[in-house]
Amino acid sequence: MIIDKKTRFLIVGLGLMGGSYARGLTQKGYHVDAIVNDKKSKDFALSHEIVRQCSDFVDEELIKNADVLIFALYPHTFIEWIEKNGALIKKDAVITDVTGVKGCIVEKVQSLLPEGPEFISAHPMAGREVYGVENSDERMFFGANYIVVPTEKNTENGIECCKRLAEILGFGRIVELSPKEHDDLIGFVSQLTHCIAVSLMTCYENEHLEKYTADSFRDLTRIANINEVLWSELFFLNRDSLLRQMELFESHFRKLYESLKTGDRDTMIEMMKESTARRKLFDK
Amino acid sequence: MIIDKKTRFLIVGLGLMGGSYARGLTQKGYHVDAIVNDKKSKDFALSHEIVRQCSDFVDEELIKNADVLIFALYPHTFIEWIEKNGALIKKDAVITDVTGVKGCIVEKVQSLLPEGPEFISAHPMAGREVYGVENSDERMFFGANYIVVPTEKNTENGIECCKRLAEILGFGRIVELSPKEHDDLIGFVSQLTHCIAVSLMTCYENEHLEKYTADSFRDLTRIANINEVLWSELFFLNRDSLLRQMELFESHFRKLYESLKTGDRDTMIEMMKESTARRKLFDK
Repeated sequence: MIIDKKTRFLIVGLGLMGGSYARGLTQKGYHVDAIVNDKKSKDFALSHEIVRQCSDFVDEELIKNADVLIFALYPHTFIEWIEKNGALIKKDAVITDVTGVKGCIVEKVQSLLPEGPEFISAHPMAGREVYGVENSDERMFFGANYIVVPTEKNTENGIECCKRLAEILGFGRIVELSPKEHDDLIGFVSQLTHCIAVSLMTCYENEHLEKYTADSFRDLTRIANINEVLWSELFFLNRDSLLRQMELFESHFRKLYESLKTGDRDTMIEMMKESTARRKLFDK
Repeated sequence: MIIDKKTRFLIVGLGLMGGSYARGLTQKGYHVDAIVNDKKSKDFALSHEIVRQCSDFVDEELIKNADVLIFALYPHTFIEWIEKNGALIKKDAVITDVTGVKGCIVEKVQSLLPEGPEFISAHPMAGREVYGVENSDERMFFGANYIVVPTEKNTENGIECCKRLAEILGFGRIVELSPKEHDDLIGFVSQLTHCIAVSLMTCYENEHLEKYTADSFRDLTRIANINEVLWSELFFLNRDSLLRQMELFESHFRKLYESLKTGDRDTMIEMMKESTARRKLFDK
């Protein structure tokens, strides 16, 4: 499977992510079809020429013709879809996804697929606090990180195809992690940060907080605007790892608290120096 | 004291904040002098025409000629300065500051001043993760919040003068809070967020974290790049209030942790819905 202008992409699920994939590929001149679950998204995608063909039911013709399938569904919906329709996928197709957790997904999907099509999982590290194909925007991928998550069942060709897709879409760093490494890391850099934002936003009763805040508070709570159905599913799918990351954060937060309570300015200053040194690596 | 183009401003301390005040006022055509504590800042300010006159010692002439004095020093340095030099200030001068805590500052400074000059405290809610007059930039104030912190010793004229200064500099919302209200709020929206960022940045050992992060992690840790000398001083000056805010945050974080640990998805979803609803108020 080598991606070229004859390749037919099929995106299953046209929300913010699926829609942004569709826009990015279409703008680069690729053939993109889509399957969605509501007429509104279909009409929007067709009238805005984000895709060529679009159906709001499981259209066997579209599936059979697809060379590269991109799944942008909720985790449990993705698994159910593959279970039900996986047999319709072309033998030499490459399948990828955007799912935010991997441990419970990648091997499950690979085991559900018939002999033939290759599922190579990926996680585009980009998002917005808005939803739906109406808000999709291919620019959110420009320069963002993209994690490819292969297992031993994947081939070099499948992995290359998945990376090629990221290049076409304009991602920045493209890295590989195992499902376990991915979930530990995502538990830390993404899920834990959302837990913090939600806790911060819910803990203080003040109706007019926006009058008094600086950028720091706005930055820390931007992601407190959260899709509760999707994110609670992702949290529970990565429960053990996220619980560990929350404990880790809490122990350091507690250390800072104790330094303040006991008047231990040396420890406080040491933590601040360390955090400054580490954070500076990000801006290099 | 009515601010007009004959008003002489004196900025004491030309770091990021003092420098930005100087630039903003100078660009609007006001007369700005400054007192700094190092030759390098003085040379920079003069050669970039950020101020008219600048001295790197306590210049009595500059102090005596000043109508409005703006102190942009570390809290303890500010108090020491007033203690030593307060008597040099003109009788009808208005004095303001940028100090990040108020309870232990405002009444102290007011009590140290001789009869005559009026100290009206303020907190510009803006900042950057860089330091020094070289990085100063008046644009960081545009649209930002500005908190005026009067006590019963302040006059209507003093408060108006302080607000006028904020208008000239382009601040957005200008609000009034008492020293106690200010410190509780700042403990929450600013100091607590810095505690979170420092804890988050120090708790995970991974040298190459920047390869895997999304915007959420970068946003939450931007302020982890922190001036440890200034911020540890600010934290200890607002110790009781900050400890309470840290406990409050921790109890909500713990609630989310328990909901995940015990499989209580309803509580998790409820917290996420509340956080989303509250955060949306910010973007109105």
